[in-house]
Amino acid sequence: MASQAQHALHPLFFPASLALIGASSDPERIGGRPLRFLLEAGFTGDLYPVNRSGAAEIQGLKAYKSLLDVPGTVEHAIIAVPAAGVEAALQECATKGVRVVQVFTAGFAEIDAEGARMQQRFVDICRAAGMRMVGPNSLGVLNPSTHLIATFSTALNGLRPTSGVIGLATQSGAFGSATYGMATLRGIGLSRVIATGNEADVDVAECIDYLADDPDTRVICAALEACKDATRLRAALLKAADAGKPVIIMKVGSTEVGAAAAATHTGSLAGNDAIYDCVFAECGAHRTASIEDMLDLAHFCAVTGGLPSNEDIGIMTGSGGIGILMADCASDLGMALPALPDSVAAGLREVVPFAVPANPFDTTAQVTSVPDGVNRVLQAMACDEAPFATLFAYLAHIGLSPTRFAGTEQGLIALHQAHPKQHLVVVMLSDPQVTRRLEAAGIAVFADPSRAVRAVAGAARMARLRRQLHRLPAANADAAAQPPLPQGLTEHQAKALLGEAGIPVLPEQVCDSPARAVQAADAMGYPVVAKIVSADIAHKTEVGGVMIDLADADAVAQAFDTIMARASRAAPDARIDGILIAPMVRGGVETILGIHADPVFGPMLMFGLGGTAVELYKDVAFASAPLTPERARALLQSVRASALLSGWRGNPPCDTGALTDAMCRLSAFAARHAGQLAGIDINPFVVQAQGAVCLDALISTR
Amino acid sequence: MASQAQHALHPLFFPASLALIGASSDPERIGGRPLRFLLEAGFTGDLYPVNRSGAAEIQGLKAYKSLLDVPGTVEHAIIAVPAAGVEAALQECATKGVRVVQVFTAGFAEIDAEGARMQQRFVDICRAAGMRMVGPNSLGVLNPSTHLIATFSTALNGLRPTSGVIGLATQSGAFGSATYGMATLRGIGLSRVIATGNEADVDVAECIDYLADDPDTRVICAALEACKDATRLRAALLKAADAGKPVIIMKVGSTEVGAAAAATHTGSLAGNDAIYDCVFAECGAHRTASIEDMLDLAHFCAVTGGLPSNEDIGIMTGSGGIGILMADCASDLGMALPALPDSVAAGLREVVPFAVPANPFDTTAQVTSVPDGVNRVLQAMACDEAPFATLFAYLAHIGLSPTRFAGTEQGLIALHQAHPKQHLVVVMLSDPQVTRRLEAAGIAVFADPSRAVRAVAGAARMARLRRQLHRLPAANADAAAQPPLPQGLTEHQAKALLGEAGIPVLPEQVCDSPARAVQAADAMGYPVVAKIVSADIAHKTEVGGVMIDLADADAVAQAFDTIMARASRAAPDARIDGILIAPMVRGGVETILGIHADPVFGPMLMFGLGGTAVELYKDVAFASAPLTPERARALLQSVRASALLSGWRGNPPCDTGALTDAMCRLSAFAARHAGQLAGIDINPFVVQAQGAVCLDALISTR
Repeated sequence: MASQAQHALHPLFFPASLALIGASSDPERIGGRPLRFLLEAGFTGDLYPVNRSGAAEIQGLKAYKSLLDVPGTVEHAIIAVPAAGVEAALQECATKGVRVVQVFTAGFAEIDAEGARMQQRFVDICRAAGMRMVGPNSLGVLNPSTHLIATFSTALNGLRPTSGVIGLATQSGAFGSATYGMATLRGIGLSRVIATGNEADVDVAECIDYLADDPDTRVICAALEACKDATRLRAALLKAADAGKPVIIMKVGSTEVGAAAAATHTGSLAGNDAIYDCVFAECGAHRTASIEDMLDLAHFCAVTGGLPSNEDIGIMTGSGGIGILMADCASDLGMALPALPDSVAAGLREVVPFAVPANPFDTTAQVTSVPDGVNRVLQAMACDEAPFATLFAYLAHIGLSPTRFAGTEQGLIALHQAHPKQHLVVVMLSDPQVTRRLEAAGIAVFADPSRAVRAVAGAARMARLRRQLHRLPAANADAAAQPPLPQGLTEHQAKALLGEAGIPVLPEQVCDSPARAVQAADAMGYPVVAKIVSADIAHKTEVGGVMIDLADADAVAQAFDTIMARASRAAPDARIDGILIAPMVRGGVETILGIHADPVFGPMLMFGLGGTAVELYKDVAFASAPLTPERARALLQSVRASALLSGWRGNPPCDTGALTDAMCRLSAFAARHAGQLAGIDINPFVVQAQGAVCLDALISTR
Repeated sequence: MASQAQHALHPLFFPASLALIGASSDPERIGGRPLRFLLEAGFTGDLYPVNRSGAAEIQGLKAYKSLLDVPGTVEHAIIAVPAAGVEAALQECATKGVRVVQVFTAGFAEIDAEGARMQQRFVDICRAAGMRMVGPNSLGVLNPSTHLIATFSTALNGLRPTSGVIGLATQSGAFGSATYGMATLRGIGLSRVIATGNEADVDVAECIDYLADDPDTRVICAALEACKDATRLRAALLKAADAGKPVIIMKVGSTEVGAAAAATHTGSLAGNDAIYDCVFAECGAHRTASIEDMLDLAHFCAVTGGLPSNEDIGIMTGSGGIGILMADCASDLGMALPALPDSVAAGLREVVPFAVPANPFDTTAQVTSVPDGVNRVLQAMACDEAPFATLFAYLAHIGLSPTRFAGTEQGLIALHQAHPKQHLVVVMLSDPQVTRRLEAAGIAVFADPSRAVRAVAGAARMARLRRQLHRLPAANADAAAQPPLPQGLTEHQAKALLGEAGIPVLPEQVCDSPARAVQAADAMGYPVVAKIVSADIAHKTEVGGVMIDLADADAVAQAFDTIMARASRAAPDARIDGILIAPMVRGGVETILGIHADPVFGPMLMFGLGGTAVELYKDVAFASAPLTPERARALLQSVRASALLSGWRGNPPCDTGALTDAMCRLSAFAARHAGQLAGIDINPFVVQAQGAVCLDALISTR
């Protein structure tokens, strides 16, 4: 594939020539181990050990005192010298015209500020030379297809890689070794492995981008500790989704949200994890919490070669109990077990008349007395009218007896060939050879019923995410041109700005005398609300600065004086702009709309419902700004309390169109002002049977 | 142990003599397979094949035409004849004085009503003879210690049992085969296995009771589809807990709650699963959702020999990322990572001065340059001052290199001998021999970090449950003597009954005229509330039958007439008892107290907080009635929204003592009337800064 060969990282995995700077004769040292691995594996390119000691030979290869002494070109260089020597080695690489360099040496930005400065100089050298760098503090790369084992991971001592279709990109080398080890022990093959370390230049996102192009890689596993470039990560994930490659991600580490974010209530709810979850899902990637789950799902995708087209499943089982166990697990994970169509039920009745044609379908022991019974049942369930994209067959431990299983095995393989679009998952204890044959035919095999269901649920979820990808528009050129947002906006000013942005606000008025207040109230109609307006009073209610349900002119005039008196008592030095008069809003459902200005991912819209749902149950959802109407509707649905908006307990349904419209407009406003915003809270945003309106707003700037 | 040998099920596992009725010469048939297994395994007791064909010999053993022809006693008989012959075979067993009989034959209560009647006759035969029966439709038992393989499970074809300390009791034979197979493939040994099938007599609870006595069994796994005898199940689980044996349960199948239960709001919230979860936890048993999780936890308990004394953990890791992965997982599962005490930190600084002495403790690469570094770090962390009951060591893949690992292995074993009370869990990829040696020394070994944490979390939770066992008093002799509850109680009558039971209610009064209403209001003080009283009007608010905040006598008199007029308009035929006048209650937090009369487990108290929390988030908890004050306090804590009761957002803390007192009294009332109650809703039960009070109540009888 042309695009892959042109990729900047191509020489990292397919170098015609590779130099190891700091090569050691001791096959156990960091400079010796990669050389040993490369030699043992039979790396197919040119291999040049470099050591300034001037040894003529290292591990049987001709050695060079300097990289510059190496004849011809060097595409890929590894630097494994002490920290103090790395800069000089990089300079040599730049001079030599190396295309990609890996720096195994540690002790830079991960240690201290001086290390960070040194690391920045490495980047400068690379940039100037047009050379790419992996690391420093990286553990290396693997490409089994070219026998490239360019790593010093001791995991390679005992475990040689199996070639496969799963690519793995990880920041942490230890995480990479653990995943590599678990995969290899299970016989799961890998196409490429890369550990990016400090990511001074190449990051996991760029590796995902490479793997999305790589024809040998059909499934991508990635592990992040932190994302530094959100645009690159989003683009890489979307590219993989567009290439039809599942991306399974682990995000390790719950770092604190930056201090700036805590400026708003929204910010305090925006856990780092929630934002990562949101961005991964928007870009079609599935996050798992354990290495084993990641491998289960990746292997499932690799074996079956595609994602199930829906989240519905059918289950055939010889055991009612196991069938229900799987059904319960599926239901917990959001999958459905649709009823069997009449045609399927009729087919099943022909094979096993005594069994009830339900889903899960319990064959009962009768199936054992029917010649070829299991296969005939599966044929009936796998017919094209079956409404489920995945069919599970629970076959107990029969796979442990390859001879007895032979007929069923052939039947399963034929069945899957006849219905290649339906995923076929066999759950049984199985001889490794049997498993391998079924997997080669595209049939997934699991021992534990719950793990089987979990993997399918993950794959089906990815398919759904892919149908709902959220693509952000290219950074708005207008954004920089926006007039700066003023600092210290009052509630009234914030609402005015939001009103200009198309968010519905009340026709409220700031008044400087009881007479003006009465005049305003007369104009808008009673009852009204009166609130103190002062940038110096953050908590209006606490100083008695809010009076509601004012029914007539007298009440308004009196409220003006009362609030002024309370405010001057409670906050004698506050600058007071006046009293805000606004119509009193009754009824409707209180929601919260917010913007969290994420330091990594930019403005994120938050949606939740008022009351304890947000605080106690964290029942809120985030979306990257700006939102499309589709994304807004999906966001709405993803909040559990949204049930309150659709006619809860006999109340009229709320105007969710007005709500999603406000979400889109607020998110667009935030995207336009991304650089200046610290956060926004619209709380409450009241959604009524007709329309919706912002009752209070806070805009916090940087 | 005397108690075990005296147990009714002892001859099931330790028969001196065993007869197989329906024995077959074909080693693949249901009547032939057990005989083959017993012969191959070398069963140590006397073995008698019985077949009415009159064959002289079956599978090389002398055969008998009738059980009655067998010389001497037969302690344990297996019946594997066609359904029509089972009754006669049971009669023969009874005549012969068999102590325990297993009926493998299926086709009884699981099929139809006639089958159920036949099954009941089997029970009658057994009861009359003092003989115990496993099944019908059971898959058999295993006792590796006596080479007893009395099952026809084909799982035994390839997988011979490994003797161990985990006992398994399961209703479903298929579930038993799956668990047995997965355990045996992993090298996890079992002490006893039993599949109880239809449970006409012996049920899983009685098997747990046996395993609690059995000295060879140290950990109990159980799988239920339904519990028929709650008293027996509770007693068996508590007995196992008292014997110090962890019980790990799977409950498969979410059957619907009986129709009677839906009589109340509480009933509709009492999912079957929630009730089982509650009862298991009250009796110290831990429920898992997958077979693999069950085996992980059981094996952990078997290896370590006890439960961690607290839910705090320490983590040593050479990889920051994996450490955080494990810490995140632990925190999700409710475990804490306490800070390292100064003494531990000082010890760590001596070994690896560059590493930050935090928890998780990342040794950094420095540890590799310290002789015996890993062991010295672990010694520092395992010192007796360490506040965590479990210490994890993440050691990557070093266990795959037994020679390199030898020193660390010795160090780990010595360390655990020095600190036997602290659980030591090694997470690494490991050679099976290395794993076996560590496990033999009481050290748990896991490959996947998340699975390691999950197992420890389950064990630590069980230890907590054991400290909080909820023992119900013996069935109250008074219960039967209670006067029957009247049918169709009005709100006022329900409250009066609850008031007598000690639940705080308001001094309210039913009045038949405006004058009486005013008189009542004057006596209790204003404001008051007026409500229609009629057993025929279920939804008072909908007919306009409730008026609140009545400030004076005029308002009360007017409300009386208004409500009466509305009621006669809305429900002209309703019998109206009058108007209820009650003091108006302001403030406080609304909670819900309910009783769900569970058809299996009896009266269960439900607690939740008012509003959407209960409906949307199912944030409610159940406890078996009657509650002790301790159980009531734990129940309160287990509801997330209880945070609202302890001074939420600057409100005064509520009187939780009054709340838990009401829980205890309500549950005692329900226990007294267990046979008559369908359910109770007290909604709302308002908890104030001082005291608490029931504002509305519904008692529903059978």
